[in-house]
Amino acid sequence: MGLFTKDIQSMDDLFVHTLRDIYYAENQIAKSLPDMIDKATDTKLRQGFEKHLAETKGHIQRIEKVFKMHGVEAGGVDCPAIDGILEEAEEVSGEVEDKAVLDAALVSAAQAVEHYEICRYGTLIAWAETLGHDEVVRFLTTNLNEEKAANTKLNSVAVRKGVNRKAA
Amino acid sequence: MGLFTKDIQSMDDLFVHTLRDIYYAENQIAKSLPDMIDKATDTKLRQGFEKHLAETKGHIQRIEKVFKMHGVEAGGVDCPAIDGILEEAEEVSGEVEDKAVLDAALVSAAQAVEHYEICRYGTLIAWAETLGHDEVVRFLTTNLNEEKAANTKLNSVAVRKGVNRKAA
Repeated sequence: MGLFTKDIQSMDDLFVHTLRDIYYAENQIAKSLPDMIDKATDTKLRQGFEKHLAETKGHIQRIEKVFKMHGVEAGGVDCPAIDGILEEAEEVSGEVEDKAVLDAALVSAAQAVEHYEICRYGTLIAWAETLGHDEVVRFLTTNLNEEKAANTKLNSVAVRKGVNRKAA
Repeated sequence: MGLFTKDIQSMDDLFVHTLRDIYYAENQIAKSLPDMIDKATDTKLRQGFEKHLAETKGHIQRIEKVFKMHGVEAGGVDCPAIDGILEEAEEVSGEVEDKAVLDAALVSAAQAVEHYEICRYGTLIAWAETLGHDEVVRFLTTNLNEEKAANTKLNSVAVRKGVNRKAA
């Protein structure tokens, strides 16, 4: 923040700020997923994380396209929200000894990440539509849909595929 | 964490830990909402925050009932996730001068909070069902449904009721 002025003057500034926020978040998630893959025991859970790491790299590239189309330099901004969500994921999983309980904790942690991203992409899409930036909506929507699918997959792994049952 | 042992040994320990996490989160949200009410200009947004503050106090009481039914003392545990989400809400809203843009930023911040809570309650309900704690499911479900309704209301305020349009 400047000493006498506030940095976000317009709705477009807010859009770009939030784009930088999710860009930073996606990069942090890409750094965290290898550790979650290492910790996961359930095969379907580990495969899900591996697939999502590849998707996350695609999300980063799509956001870079949005920056370019919007005429601003790609870059992140500090995002205490995702930092906190990932810090909590690490803290909790560090407290769990049993492999099956750890898998349940990893699903929970990953779903907190997915929900954060689903929320931010939803907001960005609504703002892009209001601002008339129709050209970027489809890139953001592709990312949103992959986050939603990843979250649904985590539900399925936990409830239908037995991660929770094995942990209980 | 103990020096030589990990604190979460069982799925039930993980359930109680996550209950303490959302209990802490709800208390922090109850402390933050008055500031969001002060900052909001749009009447429907302000009224929505006021209603949600009253609901949040109800959520805290329902979680206290769940602790009691579960035979453990009510209490919070540090939750870096909600701390980060609320810190980011404060940082971003502190950067916005224009009242209409600030309203749009407040909706976005509040939706990040709602999504976090929706996620945690969803996990707690799934775990309670797997563990056979059917008696607490209805309290957690009431909280979940109110968070979902609050999030839907925020969507409506932003998109249909014109908060985003006024900001653009």
